[in-house]
Amino acid sequence: MGNVIWVFDTTLRDGEQTPGASLTVDEKVSVAKQLARLRVDVIEAGFPAASPGEADAVKRVASEVGGTKGAPAIAALARCVPADVTVAAAALEPAARRQIHVFIATSDIHITHKLRSTRPEVLDRIRSCVAQARRLVGPDHEVEFSAEDASRTEVAFLLEAFEVAVSAGASVINVPDTVGYTEPKEFGGLVRQVVTLVGRRAIVSTHCHNDLGLATANTLAGIQAGARQVEVTINGLGERAGNASLEEVVMALRTRPGEFRGATTNVATEQITATSRLASFLTGIPVQPNKSIVGANAFAHESGIHQDGFLKNPLTYEIMTPESVGLSGSTLTLGKLSGRAGFDERLRQLGIHVEPDELDRLYGEAISLADRKKQVTDADLLALVEQHADPVPVLVELEHWATASRQGESSSGNVSIFYGGQTFRAFSGGNGPVDALLSAVDNALEQILGGRPRLVDYSLRSIGAGEDAQGEATVKIAAPAGDTDVPRTFTGHGLSTNVVEASLRAYLAAVNKLIAEHAVVANPATTAGSGA
Amino acid sequence: MGNVIWVFDTTLRDGEQTPGASLTVDEKVSVAKQLARLRVDVIEAGFPAASPGEADAVKRVASEVGGTKGAPAIAALARCVPADVTVAAAALEPAARRQIHVFIATSDIHITHKLRSTRPEVLDRIRSCVAQARRLVGPDHEVEFSAEDASRTEVAFLLEAFEVAVSAGASVINVPDTVGYTEPKEFGGLVRQVVTLVGRRAIVSTHCHNDLGLATANTLAGIQAGARQVEVTINGLGERAGNASLEEVVMALRTRPGEFRGATTNVATEQITATSRLASFLTGIPVQPNKSIVGANAFAHESGIHQDGFLKNPLTYEIMTPESVGLSGSTLTLGKLSGRAGFDERLRQLGIHVEPDELDRLYGEAISLADRKKQVTDADLLALVEQHADPVPVLVELEHWATASRQGESSSGNVSIFYGGQTFRAFSGGNGPVDALLSAVDNALEQILGGRPRLVDYSLRSIGAGEDAQGEATVKIAAPAGDTDVPRTFTGHGLSTNVVEASLRAYLAAVNKLIAEHAVVANPATTAGSGA
Repeated sequence: MGNVIWVFDTTLRDGEQTPGASLTVDEKVSVAKQLARLRVDVIEAGFPAASPGEADAVKRVASEVGGTKGAPAIAALARCVPADVTVAAAALEPAARRQIHVFIATSDIHITHKLRSTRPEVLDRIRSCVAQARRLVGPDHEVEFSAEDASRTEVAFLLEAFEVAVSAGASVINVPDTVGYTEPKEFGGLVRQVVTLVGRRAIVSTHCHNDLGLATANTLAGIQAGARQVEVTINGLGERAGNASLEEVVMALRTRPGEFRGATTNVATEQITATSRLASFLTGIPVQPNKSIVGANAFAHESGIHQDGFLKNPLTYEIMTPESVGLSGSTLTLGKLSGRAGFDERLRQLGIHVEPDELDRLYGEAISLADRKKQVTDADLLALVEQHADPVPVLVELEHWATASRQGESSSGNVSIFYGGQTFRAFSGGNGPVDALLSAVDNALEQILGGRPRLVDYSLRSIGAGEDAQGEATVKIAAPAGDTDVPRTFTGHGLSTNVVEASLRAYLAAVNKLIAEHAVVANPATTAGSGA
Repeated sequence: MGNVIWVFDTTLRDGEQTPGASLTVDEKVSVAKQLARLRVDVIEAGFPAASPGEADAVKRVASEVGGTKGAPAIAALARCVPADVTVAAAALEPAARRQIHVFIATSDIHITHKLRSTRPEVLDRIRSCVAQARRLVGPDHEVEFSAEDASRTEVAFLLEAFEVAVSAGASVINVPDTVGYTEPKEFGGLVRQVVTLVGRRAIVSTHCHNDLGLATANTLAGIQAGARQVEVTINGLGERAGNASLEEVVMALRTRPGEFRGATTNVATEQITATSRLASFLTGIPVQPNKSIVGANAFAHESGIHQDGFLKNPLTYEIMTPESVGLSGSTLTLGKLSGRAGFDERLRQLGIHVEPDELDRLYGEAISLADRKKQVTDADLLALVEQHADPVPVLVELEHWATASRQGESSSGNVSIFYGGQTFRAFSGGNGPVDALLSAVDNALEQILGGRPRLVDYSLRSIGAGEDAQGEATVKIAAPAGDTDVPRTFTGHGLSTNVVEASLRAYLAAVNKLIAEHAVVANPATTAGSGA
């Protein structure tokens, strides 16, 4: 395997811990499928002991994405607690390649204040839980041990803990900078000591947080020091300032192999842009324009000086090509779509993969958009495709809406909602048309659900330029107040040239996800069965 | 001065080169005033040779922000061209401390393909332009020389160029990683060689781009190698993936002094959050939630495990306090505002500085908001304050609007616009209420301007949660097509609990900035005079 670094993607575990980023099970499966196309080596699918829903999500990813030979290994997180390890092993069973990821904190501040334990107790727990994990997965799968807060752990004790873990059967040893505290020189030195101790018996791995903006650099310093696995996330998602970005680490290795012992990865870098967009879309967490590799401006050139040099020779200001990360160089517009063949061809050029039955629906939508909009652009097509990537159950449907507003007065809105074979009509006043219509929907939902969802976040952005541009609304809601069974948020999207329509669609999509999850939670027997 | 690192902020020069981030002169002055409160050492205000408007902006910053003793030094960029240096020196004249920043590319790829020149010619130009800059500013100010694309320049030639610059009078030698190509170990090694050569005769500086996500790490490696100035931007704004983030570099030094030779800065870190918000607001470039230090989630804790540890002891998961970057720990709501004293007190706690006459207007707006919204939160107050930070000339005013929409049909909108003592009425149909109303405004503007602005970008976000939340609209427009004198974009903001109202206000704000700039461009004599 030469010097191939394993890419361990934890978007679905650490990334999903981003506040407001929680995904439904269907959404997790959808992201995992794209991660498989990206050819990461390991997908950490979740933390099964957290809840039955989370265990179900891991099981479905293991089965639907990790079930075949050649698929990425599927990992599941477990505290150093026997029950956690058991649940993780069970959830991973459908996967062809499994990686149980056992962790416990080793820094004194965590041992004392969080675990309220002692160093000898921690070593005992590592020994027994790693051994348990190894017994459960057998010799053909991986057992990973992470020393949480490793970068603030006394080095002698950290090495002792790692020695215990390897002796107990760990095949991957992970060095997390949990609080994003370290810097490259220091972290490289630490990883080197770990590699010296256990590098012949286990794969050494890094897991770096970005609190000081150093996660990517620390990860790369780890590779320079001999690490052979890196834990990363798409778009750098994760707790607080997030994790090391997959796209930054992978493209740094590809762009500067000479600085990293010639290390490479198996990642299909041409899938980076598509994966970034999907993760941002489903979590509802935007990527800032000046984000490295995947930001909207990452390959844009503004100043006269740069444009001049760039036009003379792209190498003057570009160290990698947009095509290498799957960004279409072209932003040409389609005008009135040039027939079905031209449409299919354009999707292919954009690297978009759609199921054949979806293709017809998509073409119909694009044609209908071309009636309302002078030019259908690549950005429009990508936005349409993304709507289809969002797995929304349809339980509640919008039949009709109308609204009127004028300056200085309340707006009015009325809606008809179809649910369970019945139409519910409601109206409301509000501050502006969107508020009035969402309140009217809430009045209808109160009859259906016996409660009103809580609106947590709402945003709207234009897809491309022009007053006839499509608007894409993103809505985040939580379950009606008082319902503590489902404290999570649900993200819905809506796309339309009419911002009111886009907002209503997004709201209904989020509501449908919430209602679907409610049903699942209310009936745990169904949940356990659905992953089998 | 011990080991104090100079913080050279280039938000107004390199940051403003972010596509779509262009600022009006008033907006630049507003950002510069906040940078002075942040206590950066140098403000690079612009590139005066680029246009008369840019020269005016630099002159106004030099005069209004840099004119007093104790203010930051003001820097201006100049190519290695005699005319550029002359214009830069003139623009800096009102500043108490001046820094002319002369640059030329030194890498073979830039010399050959962009400059179409040779190494000896480049050395000649460095010698003559640095000497010219030194003559123009005299011995009491700084002359900085930058070797563009230094990280891809043959080291021997780079050192030769720097030797020439120092001999000709440069007091600051800058090592830019223009294309974001280097990594910390390599860049630290390069900076060390530069420090060895010229470190006793000049301040060595870094300027790192973030194409591979390594700008902050490279900057810090430069400090470890002896650099004493760092060029950075707020929010990491800048060409492509942007520059090293001021906030990341400064907080890394503050959090880990032992790793950086005890280096410190003069930055008032408590002003970081306010500065970040202002830069994002005026440029219209959002900060992603998982951005280090200044992202909305940077100090948020999501997962159960983290919350548990955090509640037991914040140090388990937090390496710096939110207060140290000026983030109010509290998110308490004000309810129906508890009187004028409570209001003033809350603003003070939030670290908000407002002129006394603004205070009354702000209080009135908050009271009026409390009538339409159950709870006025800190987020609402900050959003109100930001509206006042946006210097919008009032030339065109909205008198009235009304709109109606229903599913499956075009929306209608009508508006009355007041301009130059006259009311202009117009109506339009459109896809949804916002499209209809903006088109109606355009119809009115066509009578006023003889053209329609081009909508480049539109977005809307909720301030906090709840259906009664305020919406903040951001609109970017460009001048009517064909007008190549003003190819720049203008950003407008609007805040209202009614999304239609917010959108219209944002559009009118952008239009007013565009019209004001048009007048300036049409009459250069006025421009040149306004900075005196």
